[in-house]
This record gives sequence, C-alpha cells and structure tokens, in this order.
Amino acid sequence: MNIFYCPSSQINGNIADLGEQEARHVSKVLRYSEGDRITFVDGEGGWYEGKISQILEKSVFIKIASQQKIPKYSPFIILGMGIIKKRDRLEFAVEKAVELGAGKICLFRSEHTVKENVRIDRLQATALAAMKQSLRAWLPEIQIYNSLEDLFESHQSTPCLVAHEKVNAETSLSSVVDKEEKLDEVLLLVGPEGGFSSEEIDLVQQKGGRLISLGDYRLRTETAVLALLSQV
Amino acid sequence: MNIFYCPSSQINGNIADLGEQEARHVSKVLRYSEGDRITFVDGEGGWYEGKISQILEKSVFIKIASQQKIPKYSPFIILGMGIIKKRDRLEFAVEKAVELGAGKICLFRSEHTVKENVRIDRLQATALAAMKQSLRAWLPEIQIYNSLEDLFESHQSTPCLVAHEKVNAETSLSSVVDKEEKLDEVLLLVGPEGGFSSEEIDLVQQKGGRLISLGDYRLRTETAVLALLSQV
Repeated sequence: MNIFYCPSSQINGNIADLGEQEARHVSKVLRYSEGDRITFVDGEGGWYEGKISQILEKSVFIKIASQQKIPKYSPFIILGMGIIKKRDRLEFAVEKAVELGAGKICLFRSEHTVKENVRIDRLQATALAAMKQSLRAWLPEIQIYNSLEDLFESHQSTPCLVAHEKVNAETSLSSVVDKEEKLDEVLLLVGPEGGFSSEEIDLVQQKGGRLISLGDYRLRTETAVLALLSQV
Repeated sequence: MNIFYCPSSQINGNIADLGEQEARHVSKVLRYSEGDRITFVDGEGGWYEGKISQILEKSVFIKIASQQKIPKYSPFIILGMGIIKKRDRLEFAVEKAVELGAGKICLFRSEHTVKENVRIDRLQATALAAMKQSLRAWLPEIQIYNSLEDLFESHQSTPCLVAHEKVNAETSLSSVVDKEEKLDEVLLLVGPEGGFSSEEIDLVQQKGGRLISLGDYRLRTETAVLALLSQV
C-alpha cells in the first residue's frame, strides 16, 4: 500500500492538488491513471481517500471521497536528541524516530556536539518518507536548538525524561513512567555522542528532568533513541 | 573508553596477541605505547584487562592482569530476520541488533526476499564493531539460511515469537512473554520486506511459533528488529 502527502494548504474543499514531487511520483513512477483510487495524508492527522480526477505535468488532482482525523499521539513524545556527527546516522535516527511514533523532533547542539551544520531540508524529507512508509498521518516537526538550555526554555511545562549512561540501571523507563498519572506530553532527551557534560546534567536536574537508564551497555545516540521510543 | 577484540585462539596463558587489524588500530590510530593499560574481549564472554608488553608491526602483545567471564545473555535471543535488500539497511539492522543484545543473528531467504547475495564478511565486521562500541563481551554469530524452513530445522526446540503485521494489536510482546515461565532461549522472527507469505505464516504456526504485534503501524524490517529487541 502506498500513501501520499498533500499539505492542507493544497486542499480546497473536496479537491486536493498533490504538489510537483508527489505528482511526479504518482504519475511517472507508479503510473497511476485518472480514475484510480488513492490515499493521502496531510501530515496534521488528516487521512483522505479519493479518486484521481486529473493528471497534469506537475499536478495530480484528487477528488476526495472520504476523510478522517487521526488523533494526535498520546502521550505526545517530543524527542530531544543531540546532533549526531555522521549524516547517515542522524538521518537514520530521524527516520526511525518517525516510524516509532515521535510527535516532534528537537535537535540540539551541546558541549560535546562535534558537527555544526545540519541539512534540515534533508531531515524533513527523511521524516516525510518515514511518515508515508509507516502509514502515519502526522508529520513530526523538526527543530534545531543552539543549546540544551534553549530547548528547555521552549518546553518549560513539559515533563522531561533523560537517558543517561551514568545512572542506576534500575531506574528504567517503565519504573519512572508507571508511577506517573497519564502523561499527555513528554520530552525524551538523548545525549549527543560523548554524552552530556556534567553542566548539562546539572541543568537537566535543575529543570526537573528525571534521569533514566537504558541498561548496562553503552548505546550510540541513535540506538538510545530507538530503544527509548520502542519502550514508550 | 575503547575495548578491543582478541579471539581466544590468540590468547595463550596470560599473553594475548591482538591480530593485525586490531594491532594496527591500537598502535597506529590510537597510538598506544608499550606499558599502556588496555581492555579487550574475546567475543565469548571473556573480559580482560592488561598492559601492552610489546608492539610489533602486525602484533600487539598484552600481558593479562585480570579476566572475568561475562555470563551469556539470558534469555538468549536468536534473531531470525528476513534478508533486507538494501545493504546499508541490512548492516544497520545487524549493528543495532548487536548493540541491543541479540545473542545470535540468523538471516533467512524467504518467498518475498529480493536480494540473493549477502556479504557476510561485512556483516561480521559490523557485528564486531558494534560489540566493541557497546562494550559487550559476546560476539553474535551470523548465519544465513536458505529458507524459513531451514531456520526452523536448526532451532527445533527453541520457543519462537514472530512479529507480524496482520495480527491483533493486543497481542503485544509483553502479553505473550509475561505469561511464560522464564525463557532461557527465544527465537524472535521478523519478516522480510513485503512480509511473510501466507505459506510461511502457516509454517510458523505449525511449528508452534506465536504471532505478536508491534502495534498499528507498518514498520520496516530493521525497525521491527529494533522495536522487538528494545522491548525484550
């Protein structure tokens, strides 16, 4: 099954106009024809079924037959992740985070961050592809913060859990989260390569973040992301 | 912290001789000197500490000061995974499987498998690097089977859990495994791209394999591997 993406700005009443890239994929690669049934999402929870009414060079028009609203994830997981130096690992982490249900992805520079430039357009394309692949209707926003402090500044009221190596291995995610009343939203923090600096850990604790362990072994940043999201 | 690998065949009494590749890494890349402390594993649970006694062109000799035996994983997880067509995704799945604690990795060809040739030497190198990265002392063996039937043939007495899309989402891993007495060994099966064929699912059930769900979303093979291992 293939699903496609059409932002809500390109949906007018019961007619959707797939943008150039998706239109090309539909008509040139997958060779859909006018009259074919098609499913698409708007990245904001809208899930649409319809039929192709017209195929043009750079547009595919769809007449919408039915639509439903997929609820926002609950708990809504905001993944805060140190920037990973190697591009393929960073893209992989974003892809897997989307496939495993992250609601928003916040990358942050930290004291141990090596790389400074991030191609956010590529990460957004990765997230879009992963949303379609995993048949999800919500496209996570990707944000970049210049420091852990900036990230906290923007998420002041969100409960925060932090994966940290140097913590008692008994403090597992489930032991921390089970005690909670139902969380609506949670900020999951995973450190950069090299881990958090001690100043950053102080900051985390000062902001009320709770440290959790992912077990006895040293996990790469992207592996910790996957392990944490899989357990939520 | 860096750890190194030295197979038990290169350990004689209290002297270990790192092979050419590791020796080069120790002396040329990381520039260790004679007398430096060093930690290595043998991939079979042995964890050694010692001092470098001699550095030669293609050998680094270590005088072992202490050693301990890390117990085999319990439960011992045998990961059975359909071969993934794209090499980077297959290598990534192997890397993450090792980092997340798989005990053995069995790749199998299946009716929906596209690719036929697998560079097992590259996968073994990937597994070795992942073992060292995650500070583990056990190196998972990687085996390739020509069919799902062959895989079952070799693991007849091992309880089997199978991740499958088309299964009631309530049949989660924890709901199946909690009911069990302590499992010593378990075969976790993840389908290839395109999923299992209906004949393969019949075979799984005939062999006593229990189907489990990883949730409502469509997960790539490597994502399912990660999600499953993270939950064990």
